[in-house]
Amino acid sequence: MEIQLRKIAGLLEGAVIGDDTVMINNVRGIDEAGNGDITFIANPRYRHKLEYTGASAVLVSPTIKESTKNLVVVQDPYKAFARLLGLFYPEDQETPGISDQVFVGEGTEFGENTTSYPGVYVGRGVRIGKGVVLYPGVCIGNNVEIGEDSILYPNVTVYRKCRIGKRVIIHAGVVVGSDGFGFTDPGRENRKIPQVGIVQIDDDVEIGANTTIDRGTLGKTWIKRGTKIDNLVQIAHNVVIGENSIVVAQVGISGSTKLGNSVVIGGQAGIVGHIEIGDGVMIAARSGVHEDVSSGQIVSGAPHMPHQKWLRTQACIGQLPDMRRTLKYIEEKIEALEKQNKA
Amino acid sequence: MEIQLRKIAGLLEGAVIGDDTVMINNVRGIDEAGNGDITFIANPRYRHKLEYTGASAVLVSPTIKESTKNLVVVQDPYKAFARLLGLFYPEDQETPGISDQVFVGEGTEFGENTTSYPGVYVGRGVRIGKGVVLYPGVCIGNNVEIGEDSILYPNVTVYRKCRIGKRVIIHAGVVVGSDGFGFTDPGRENRKIPQVGIVQIDDDVEIGANTTIDRGTLGKTWIKRGTKIDNLVQIAHNVVIGENSIVVAQVGISGSTKLGNSVVIGGQAGIVGHIEIGDGVMIAARSGVHEDVSSGQIVSGAPHMPHQKWLRTQACIGQLPDMRRTLKYIEEKIEALEKQNKA
Amino acid sequence: MEIQLRKIAGLLEGAVIGDDTVMINNVRGIDEAGNGDITFIANPRYRHKLEYTGASAVLVSPTIKESTKNLVVVQDPYKAFARLLGLFYPEDQETPGISDQVFVGEGTEFGENTTSYPGVYVGRGVRIGKGVVLYPGVCIGNNVEIGEDSILYPNVTVYRKCRIGKRVIIHAGVVVGSDGFGFTDPGRENRKIPQVGIVQIDDDVEIGANTTIDRGTLGKTWIKRGTKIDNLVQIAHNVVIGENSIVVAQVGISGSTKLGNSVVIGGQAGIVGHIEIGDGVMIAARSGVHEDVSSGQIVSGAPHMPHQKWLRTQACIGQLPDMRRTLKYIEEKIEALEKQNKA
Repeated sequence: MEIQLRKIAGLLEGAVIGDDTVMINNVRGIDEAGNGDITFIANPRYRHKLEYTGASAVLVSPTIKESTKNLVVVQDPYKAFARLLGLFYPEDQETPGISDQVFVGEGTEFGENTTSYPGVYVGRGVRIGKGVVLYPGVCIGNNVEIGEDSILYPNVTVYRKCRIGKRVIIHAGVVVGSDGFGFTDPGRENRKIPQVGIVQIDDDVEIGANTTIDRGTLGKTWIKRGTKIDNLVQIAHNVVIGENSIVVAQVGISGSTKLGNSVVIGGQAGIVGHIEIGDGVMIAARSGVHEDVSSGQIVSGAPHMPHQKWLRTQACIGQLPDMRRTLKYIEEKIEALEKQNKA
Repeated sequence: MEIQLRKIAGLLEGAVIGDDTVMINNVRGIDEAGNGDITFIANPRYRHKLEYTGASAVLVSPTIKESTKNLVVVQDPYKAFARLLGLFYPEDQETPGISDQVFVGEGTEFGENTTSYPGVYVGRGVRIGKGVVLYPGVCIGNNVEIGEDSILYPNVTVYRKCRIGKRVIIHAGVVVGSDGFGFTDPGRENRKIPQVGIVQIDDDVEIGANTTIDRGTLGKTWIKRGTKIDNLVQIAHNVVIGENSIVVAQVGISGSTKLGNSVVIGGQAGIVGHIEIGDGVMIAARSGVHEDVSSGQIVSGAPHMPHQKWLRTQACIGQLPDMRRTLKYIEEKIEALEKQNKA
Repeated sequence: MEIQLRKIAGLLEGAVIGDDTVMINNVRGIDEAGNGDITFIANPRYRHKLEYTGASAVLVSPTIKESTKNLVVVQDPYKAFARLLGLFYPEDQETPGISDQVFVGEGTEFGENTTSYPGVYVGRGVRIGKGVVLYPGVCIGNNVEIGEDSILYPNVTVYRKCRIGKRVIIHAGVVVGSDGFGFTDPGRENRKIPQVGIVQIDDDVEIGANTTIDRGTLGKTWIKRGTKIDNLVQIAHNVVIGENSIVVAQVGISGSTKLGNSVVIGGQAGIVGHIEIGDGVMIAARSGVHEDVSSGQIVSGAPHMPHQKWLRTQACIGQLPDMRRTLKYIEEKIEALEKQNKA
């Protein structure tokens, strides 16, 4: 595909500074971009790269007003870049159809234009919405519902009765609806508590590879609309995650914890069970959250504390050996002063 | 299903206080329960909810003696609740049979009443006990043994020669018997050390989704009877875990470490290789355990320390900025005192 | 298999001290070894076990010169042990062939002597090198390349266009090429940024069970020659890992971070995005690395610091309650001294 810069600017509602007739045929990172490429500067930190890039054009924010390079000035260069990725790299179109190597249980219904690859297993009484794509090795338990235009990548497992919304993307190896981890008298009797609830995943959620989401003991584990979960995340029974939240890789959330909307959790953080995290909370990577966090807070550390306090505390940690030396020195001084006073 | 409260009390060996003729048709959490539901109070913290619940009956411990609600007094309300879950939500009965879309290798034997779904692969010389259920996408290597009434959920992989006991539950995506991580001269030569041992999983073990258990270099990696392992746990080569232990999600246990019976390990904890953890040890979530821990200890922190010490230490960490300020203040005071004394 | 000790010594270029005619039929750990077994002592710490082992022969380093046991003196007993494992436990030979229960897309080519088990799915335009083994449940997306003699264990997923080198070993459940975790305005808008790059895995890499490696947003995520990655590791979009590195289980590496050659990362460590880690860096288990680390450094802690400094700091942490008490004691002393001076 080759598009004139003028036309790209039109699509992005941006203004060209420089030659708007150059032809663009790819989008690339600023270090790799060359002749025919368009690139972007989203972070002011990289502004110095503008003059050195080999790109034929650069998406920039309105703060950049001139350059020897051809510029496309847009409100948000990163979003504009994301749109161009979609333009230059359109998704592979699936040819809809259900392979004759798919196993389909009794009473199961597929909507129009669904795609189901060889090696898919779909149980009894399942409802698959129109436009859904099921890749090889996907296994759908009995009485599951999957909303329209959702995509399940290879080797995803969805246990019985779980409900998945529309336009949900589930990456390879994800497990939805495995039993919650519940035993009576743990460490001694370890008798299994039946896990009879479900998992509900609302519209526009995306779930990263090999993440696990356990079913509720009773009721449901619930991921609300627009939330995005990265790879290898653990979500325990009866957890609720609000709308538009972000959960980075390898986070673990323990049973029955409720998160608000627009919560952002950094990688490898852990959250104990039975607590509440308010709307808009930000939890730094590797934090250990052990009690409720009210809306809008930013927390860090394990055990967690307000982020500003954590910064001050961390600054002290590296100075501990110095502090200990000073303490010893002061003890000696005091002993000397006491002797003097007695003398 | 609808059962009279009197009959439920009989099953649970409990005593009704109130109307024992009410009809019960479901079990629910105390906040959601309504007319026709039975619920429970296991934690005294939630006792105040007793009068507000909409439930028709409540399982309580003998410490609660009266209420406007119908009560069933039992020794352990949580265990009674677990039993009622099994009663009101009986497991789906599988129709035993081996799908003709299962691949079965030479010399492999299935016991009576086994269930094997389409898309299962079973290698050569495998022994599958009676009543075993293999879900779609399960792959069993050559010469594996699986004991009776075990359940392997979809997309589980068991490598060659591993041995799985009776009534074992293995959730979706689990990998049993992958190669241990062993290389000569790591970081330079990285030559692979053949991993020729196995994994042995004893009776009544449960393993959570996407957990990985590596085979022994020689000998075996061994999970003993009754131990329950949560999701996304890593168990390295030649680890031994004793009986009735509990390993919460995302824990990692390094090579050749031996754990005793009834060990409880909180989520995201890590344990180094070649150490011993005694019986009944409790390891707090997110701990990093770097050396032997003797029986009965409770440890926390990374690096770990006795839990009581850790509590005292953590109390100080938040006060570090204060301590540093005090230290500075004292230094000034001492300087002043020294000047005075010289004067 | 039974081999005379003399012949084993010849293979290992070692010298026998003792009876070189004994017959050896197995290799075992020093505690388990008995009659007919050969074992090894690699770590001087275990030298005392030499006289107690039941083994018929022991691989030792040149520092051990005599014993009542038959010795084979070699330069590196651990490497010699690794070679003997390969000798006594030869790998199962696969019978090459492509099962008729494999789905193969249009334009896909298989080299000679490839093995493809039932239940494998291979998309369009894929190139599979000679000698490659694909186990059941493996799913290969369109236009993927796999170099000769690579092994993909069961239920591995490789997304479209990814490139895998020669002699690569990928354990069960691994996901290669899932979408990177990229959204505009995270926590608010969460609009997906198309992930149009690939993953490239070079020759002689090994990847542990259920590890996930995301494709680049643009360009590639790249694992270079000879690097070994353990189980449940998360590697984000556009990460580059140099040659011969070691990444232990449950490590997470965030987007666009570049690692040098021969880097060693301990288990459960986390590395933030967009930083550079130099050649030969060692990162201790459970570290949190938040900024560049120059070549040859050893770092520990979260946030990380030089390992020596971390050791000194940790020594203080356990003494914090003591330090706080001392501080209080000093404050009182000073007050007393000030009173005295005023009096």
